Amino acid sequence: MANILDVEALLFDVFGTVVNWKSSVIKQLAQSHGIPEDILAATPTDWDAFAVEWRTKYYQQTKKVSESGIGSTNIDVVHRQLLDEMLETPRWQHLSAHWGDKKREEMTRFWHKLDGWEDSSRGLYSMKKDFILGTLSNGSARLLVDLHADLPWDIVFSGDIIGSFKTNPKMYLGAVEKLDLKPHKVAMVAAHRHDLVAAATHGMKTVYVRRPTEDAYLTAEEKAAIKPRADGGEFDLVVNSLTELAQLLESPE
Amino acid sequence: MANILDVEALLFDVFGTVVNWKSSVIKQLAQSHGIPEDILAATPTDWDAFAVEWRTKYYQQTKKVSESGIGSTNIDVVHRQLLDEMLETPRWQHLSAHWGDKKREEMTRFWHKLDGWEDSSRGLYSMKKDFILGTLSNGSARLLVDLHADLPWDIVFSGDIIGSFKTNPKMYLGAVEKLDLKPHKVAMVAAHRHDLVAAATHGMKTVYVRRPTEDAYLTAEEKAAIKPRADGGEFDLVVNSLTELAQLLESPE
Repeated sequence: MANILDVEALLFDVFGTVVNWKSSVIKQLAQSHGIPEDILAATPTDWDAFAVEWRTKYYQQTKKVSESGIGSTNIDVVHRQLLDEMLETPRWQHLSAHWGDKKREEMTRFWHKLDGWEDSSRGLYSMKKDFILGTLSNGSARLLVDLHADLPWDIVFSGDIIGSFKTNPKMYLGAVEKLDLKPHKVAMVAAHRHDLVAAATHGMKTVYVRRPTEDAYLTAEEKAAIKPRADGGEFDLVVNSLTELAQLLESPE
Repeated sequence: MANILDVEALLFDVFGTVVNWKSSVIKQLAQSHGIPEDILAATPTDWDAFAVEWRTKYYQQTKKVSESGIGSTNIDVVHRQLLDEMLETPRWQHLSAHWGDKKREEMTRFWHKLDGWEDSSRGLYSMKKDFILGTLSNGSARLLVDLHADLPWDIVFSGDIIGSFKTNPKMYLGAVEKLDLKPHKVAMVAAHRHDLVAAATHGMKTVYVRRPTEDAYLTAEEKAAIKPRADGGEFDLVVNSLTELAQLLESPE
């Protein structure tokens, strides 16, 4: 059956696109940080800033590994290393002594328990009838299996399964090859411009999902180009939710 | 929550264990073989024997690749090569001229459309609440995604994803590592003795599923050992269906 993108499979970025990492991690930090109240009162701790810094460092590290091939492709290892590094910096040093190895491991696992955006589960279940649905995430296989959100993947492609991180070409081409499809029969769905730009260089279709927590650092020019190709933009489709994507894919061409 | 096997994840062999390859392939051969009736009348063709021979050759080839590391780990490639070889043999030569490249490709894809045993889907859905469910199959990722049966996998481990075939240790250890579990926290579920014997050598738990089409070539001694360890047998559990397995895993220890 033809669809607006003329694809057979959809591959989804997960952090930020399908699950709301920011609210989930901040909630877990706020609920179970285990830091004595007097320490926090003396040096007020902003869990929002903590989560954003952790996430930003993670993004920088995956970029480095994807470009150099050096470094772990297991997200738990990366998250833990970055957490340890953060706790050595002046801003977060006051927390360091209170978090031993066990607590730091528990915090690293916070990233396994993210909630979906409210449209994600419903959108995926609608699309599952007509498409192969996979992750194409820098998360580890186990992390993607553990997520709190109810996400009916047909297949999980992860950093540790493919052995790299996006935006290394191996990630896109490896997944497309395993699906035994031509790249133009697969769409990359993401809330991040750089991920879709990379997917497009390999001939994949692109769907940009607008998410309030993501792509905060785009230039005005880049932001302006987030429009469907039909309107002079960079991507095949631009949507506000996965339910909107499901509807678009169902409508006759 | 404790369970009778004390595991967190179950990895399933697929061909024969979860899907009924034999009846599915015979049905497809009988329905859409495309051979003129006079040819078949002159040399009566037994589709049952054809399917069994194809399957047996496939088993021998995966064994060779798993031991030598030489040969494709993509099941479509293997099935096609074996089909071409079969059609050169005296027994099936009368069919050869009638099946061109396109038809042979279509027949190779028959293996993507297998039906489940009648208990499979229900059993897996019951177990999904409490366990991580994965395939550990020599099938390709795309084949496992394409199956007709409704199988709610959390994760797909395949020959082409891990880059070998069972019973190469890489298959068992690779999957267990990606699940970030100790081997004894993972059970291999299969209708084939050799698969479970291999899994056990790596410390995995073992569940034997009795299926009428499988393990036809066991010795009387081997057959007799298909009993739970508690009864002096080789395996942790022996069941007749995946619904029975689900029930056993739910019952208090």
